[in-house]
Amino acid sequence: MTRNLIMAIALGASMAQAPADDSRPASSNVLNAQYPRVHGDNRLTFRLTAPNAQKVQLQPGGADNGLGKGPIDMTRDEKGLWSITLPSAVPGFHYYWFVVDGLNVNDPGSETFFGWGRQTSGIEVPEPGADYYDLHNVPHGQVRLRLYESKVTGAWRQAYVYTPPDYDANTKTRYPVLYLQHGAGENATSWTKQGRAHLILDNLIAAGKAKPMIVVMDTGYATRPGATPVQGATGTPQIPNAFEDVVINDLIPMIDASYRTLADRDNRAMAGLSIGGGQTLQITSKNLGTFAWIGSFSAPLRNFDLKTSMNGVLTDPAAFNKKVRLFWIGSGTGETAIHEAASQLDKALEAAGIKHVAFVSPGTSHEWQTWRRSLNDFAPRLWR
Amino acid sequence: MTRNLIMAIALGASMAQAPADDSRPASSNVLNAQYPRVHGDNRLTFRLTAPNAQKVQLQPGGADNGLGKGPIDMTRDEKGLWSITLPSAVPGFHYYWFVVDGLNVNDPGSETFFGWGRQTSGIEVPEPGADYYDLHNVPHGQVRLRLYESKVTGAWRQAYVYTPPDYDANTKTRYPVLYLQHGAGENATSWTKQGRAHLILDNLIAAGKAKPMIVVMDTGYATRPGATPVQGATGTPQIPNAFEDVVINDLIPMIDASYRTLADRDNRAMAGLSIGGGQTLQITSKNLGTFAWIGSFSAPLRNFDLKTSMNGVLTDPAAFNKKVRLFWIGSGTGETAIHEAASQLDKALEAAGIKHVAFVSPGTSHEWQTWRRSLNDFAPRLWR
Repeated sequence: MTRNLIMAIALGASMAQAPADDSRPASSNVLNAQYPRVHGDNRLTFRLTAPNAQKVQLQPGGADNGLGKGPIDMTRDEKGLWSITLPSAVPGFHYYWFVVDGLNVNDPGSETFFGWGRQTSGIEVPEPGADYYDLHNVPHGQVRLRLYESKVTGAWRQAYVYTPPDYDANTKTRYPVLYLQHGAGENATSWTKQGRAHLILDNLIAAGKAKPMIVVMDTGYATRPGATPVQGATGTPQIPNAFEDVVINDLIPMIDASYRTLADRDNRAMAGLSIGGGQTLQITSKNLGTFAWIGSFSAPLRNFDLKTSMNGVLTDPAAFNKKVRLFWIGSGTGETAIHEAASQLDKALEAAGIKHVAFVSPGTSHEWQTWRRSLNDFAPRLWR
Repeated sequence: MTRNLIMAIALGASMAQAPADDSRPASSNVLNAQYPRVHGDNRLTFRLTAPNAQKVQLQPGGADNGLGKGPIDMTRDEKGLWSITLPSAVPGFHYYWFVVDGLNVNDPGSETFFGWGRQTSGIEVPEPGADYYDLHNVPHGQVRLRLYESKVTGAWRQAYVYTPPDYDANTKTRYPVLYLQHGAGENATSWTKQGRAHLILDNLIAAGKAKPMIVVMDTGYATRPGATPVQGATGTPQIPNAFEDVVINDLIPMIDASYRTLADRDNRAMAGLSIGGGQTLQITSKNLGTFAWIGSFSAPLRNFDLKTSMNGVLTDPAAFNKKVRLFWIGSGTGETAIHEAASQLDKALEAAGIKHVAFVSPGTSHEWQTWRRSLNDFAPRLWR
């Protein structure tokens, strides 16, 4: 086939010989792509063939990205191969892209991950000693693509639904449900692709650390018929917005009708990262008859006020403590402002006698490693 | 968040005002991206902001791509916005990318689709009067991400498994299984993302045209432990190769153990497109005790020989006719060489008295529209 010939030629660069060192292709690469590479000490080498470019840079996605601050100039060799080796990176998943003479370009060697409102490159940097999000030889659940019609938006939506390993075999068993949201510029695929939520749950369930549960991952953007999308897919969803009504009026009824759920508040949790955490605090507090378990993963809490935030439900600590089975607030020490706000909230909640868990992820910032750790701490506390 | 501010700025271009014509964003765009756009007459307008580029071109993926022959020069305006409007395109899904001063670059407005051994841009061009692959208000099946361990490769693999709309409700019903393969440089995601196999099945089942079935979509590349991947992810898998053993020794046993299948040859089909069709002919003919239904969607048939091809099973037409419940060979008139070879095979089979169906897709080439039509014709003939 002509096509395959073209492909073999086009992909020549990425099939090049591996260097004689301890580096290996990143696990986030597309199959057989040799670059980017991860060294034994988590130094990273990136490459791009661009003979006609005047300047090629590596751009980590975000100000507190574990790859460092960008843009980072890459070096050209005589054949037009641009490369850079970064110092040891913070473990976890990091968004990045190349900037070629000012143009944002994905790395053809990388899988793509929906973030920043588009499909971007990303690199997985291993964390020594951490294997809770790795693929192990344990029973695995399934992540199901689920189409459903939304009356709120007047359009079809697609959610991803994790069913635990024993779901198909135990046809009489009903399960509690965690609704799990992504951050700004991401979508329903992110908790699986970037977050590895399914592997975290598989491992926790196999170890008996978490009870088997269903996890629902939807896209946190929604627009009413005729309305203009607020800031587009890349901006922060306004709170409250149409997504709130989608969750309550469309998503939960569909999930309870389609899966063997335990369909009451004691068996329904919601958590989310970044703006998804903000959505979680808004939606759960407004609907305490629907949710009893609340997880805020690095939500923006800067202007949090015990009197007015969360629809005022914190003004009556006794009532809140009675109703809410878990109020979980996490942050990473590397996301300074968010961590500071979370620490202040922790103290304020403590002073007010409001039961909660304050989780701190050491050394990680506003990135997926913080949220993987968050899920790994949060999920075992559910349904107890 | 700093991050959202950056995003709002970076995405400014794609949020620009829509033109005052009958065009609309392609359905294959990422949410809210205004370009590429599809006009009422299927003319297509592409745009890329690249002020520093000397030359920007549009490259349709493949020699017989429905967008035309590439590379196609785009025009720069005074601000560095490059654009091109193509004449009315052939309906269907077309791979494409931009070439910026010689560098292959995806369109940030497009979703990405795994093809050509990497994540590439693609555009969906509607076909007037064709809605069999659209999302309709009918009961929907689910596409499940399924992890499984391969003894053949010594590694974990992931397949996608379509379960029909009534699968979860009818907990006693067992279903026949179609194994459905992608082409070279594609993977297990392709039949859902590019092919819309799940929607085609949903619609056929809702209309009573196809019997409910399970569809298994795996990646047709496999490497034995210690072996070097043959040509990498972008090349044509050699036939036979390790994937054959994966299907027979790992995949089918896992599917039959995990899903409510009818686990006999009369209820097991295999089909594939392009090299996936070649794999289908090889695997089914070598394992007629395992498969009774065979679909070749635009397989390379140039050197097909009734005596030696398909492991010689066509040398005994009576035995073949008795064993094989469906032998289906499809091609598009636009993929000239493949169509010619398929037509010759049709005649040779006819002359030899070998029962078969020869399907022709008018006006489409070696692209997904041919294979959507193929599936739409093939699936209703199964299990009859």
